[in-house]
Amino acid sequence: MELWYTEVQTDNVKFSMRVKETLFTKKSEFQQIDILDTYDFGKVLVIDGWTMITEKDEFIYHEMITHVPLTVNTNIKNVLVIGAGDGGTVRELLRFPSIEHIDMVELDEEVVLASEKFLPFTSCKLRDPKVKLYFQDGIKFVEGLENKYDLIIVDSTDPIGPGEGLFTLDFYKNCYKALTENGILVNQGESPYYDMNKKEMQRANKKLKEIFPICEVYQYMIPTYPSGHWFFGFASKTLHPVTDYNEEYYKSLNLEDQYYNEEIHKAAFALPNYVKNLLKE
Amino acid sequence: MELWYTEVQTDNVKFSMRVKETLFTKKSEFQQIDILDTYDFGKVLVIDGWTMITEKDEFIYHEMITHVPLTVNTNIKNVLVIGAGDGGTVRELLRFPSIEHIDMVELDEEVVLASEKFLPFTSCKLRDPKVKLYFQDGIKFVEGLENKYDLIIVDSTDPIGPGEGLFTLDFYKNCYKALTENGILVNQGESPYYDMNKKEMQRANKKLKEIFPICEVYQYMIPTYPSGHWFFGFASKTLHPVTDYNEEYYKSLNLEDQYYNEEIHKAAFALPNYVKNLLKE
Repeated sequence: MELWYTEVQTDNVKFSMRVKETLFTKKSEFQQIDILDTYDFGKVLVIDGWTMITEKDEFIYHEMITHVPLTVNTNIKNVLVIGAGDGGTVRELLRFPSIEHIDMVELDEEVVLASEKFLPFTSCKLRDPKVKLYFQDGIKFVEGLENKYDLIIVDSTDPIGPGEGLFTLDFYKNCYKALTENGILVNQGESPYYDMNKKEMQRANKKLKEIFPICEVYQYMIPTYPSGHWFFGFASKTLHPVTDYNEEYYKSLNLEDQYYNEEIHKAAFALPNYVKNLLKE
Repeated sequence: MELWYTEVQTDNVKFSMRVKETLFTKKSEFQQIDILDTYDFGKVLVIDGWTMITEKDEFIYHEMITHVPLTVNTNIKNVLVIGAGDGGTVRELLRFPSIEHIDMVELDEEVVLASEKFLPFTSCKLRDPKVKLYFQDGIKFVEGLENKYDLIIVDSTDPIGPGEGLFTLDFYKNCYKALTENGILVNQGESPYYDMNKKEMQRANKKLKEIFPICEVYQYMIPTYPSGHWFFGFASKTLHPVTDYNEEYYKSLNLEDQYYNEEIHKAAFALPNYVKNLLKE
């Protein structure tokens, strides 16, 4: 028997990976969680039928969601992470010496428990003393906070299901207030290629622009997400992701990354014309 | 009934597009040629089961294979194109005023005939007076030529089947001789993500480095190729693709491209660490 996991990327596009075995499957209070062992991608976390991370290329996602803000504001001490139950974002954050404390707010404890059991390569730092885990709604968590975090990372699923509220104007306003003066918001920014993702990317970017004086998107190439060409939003009160980039600081850390480097940082903000045009519409 | 075309990208990975109808199917002397009309990607040319171009994203491939060399050497007059039967490369070349003559050598006339019938968006310029079509083997075509072309574009299929000879040391040596002093060779350079493509990319790059003093690779993000992260090789006798890039020249042309722009040109040479390391091995 051959076992295949198929992600239905649009009504007319499917991406399939051959599976060695299903390691975990559970319907939690919030969503369907599956962890698969695959031939080409190693362990894969799937939520509600969508690929969240694969062992083969999660490094691309996690380096890019963290290294870009942490080399623009080199004095980030307090971080709020929303989502990111697999732990990869926290693992990367803790490689930076400036980090003093991380509040991680994940709606679904089951994602963390399953990741700790089956995905040690991402979950390895979730119980670090610098990390405090909250299993609650990130949308409510940021309400009423002021001047508290130097960085907020919204490492969410797509804006369907539980992740939807993380793409609203009110949520972004609360993030703005919760950030310090040189604070940065990085959010999972969707993709410009397929129609549905394209609209979500555009909408999220428009909302952020209403609130933050500096608002850019940056790209990374991750083969296991639909289209392979995916984006993060970078929104900030004062710092620009390219002109305020501190290349020397990054070099001094000797991080030996697998994807990120100084050229990639700048190149990530060089957008193809069709993406630029989409964001101007 | 639902009709799906599935590209078997590796033994363990499949990419599928929903098909409206098959427009053309023929086994030529050299290969199996299919043209499909699909829901999300428009018309799609498939050779031996591999996606060659789709109407939705061929602009990415064709702008990147041509605009990069033509803005580095701004005096490219004579061009040799090998492969490229769909016509997209010729269409893009002819947008540059420096071009005086293009010899296009395509092994399989059936690809050109089918493209002219079903893919007018790429084949539209194949009968332009500046273009001379040869239906023969590109490998033999370049043998013995000297100082003839300012640019050679190897727009080939993968190094399996008829395309194999276009990835050999002898072929690259003949290209070197056939190029003028400021000549540039651009070749379809595979991808660093899946094992098979990775090895081919590495091999081709090593061979080119033995012959050309300047030898770089550059990336583009094309969702319908395996992994979505694909490369061209840039090899030249004298000109460097970034330091000799003539941004002002490009701006003066007002090409209104869909993918390529000045930032993309430079960013295309900013490689992720895992790609850099692969090319150092």
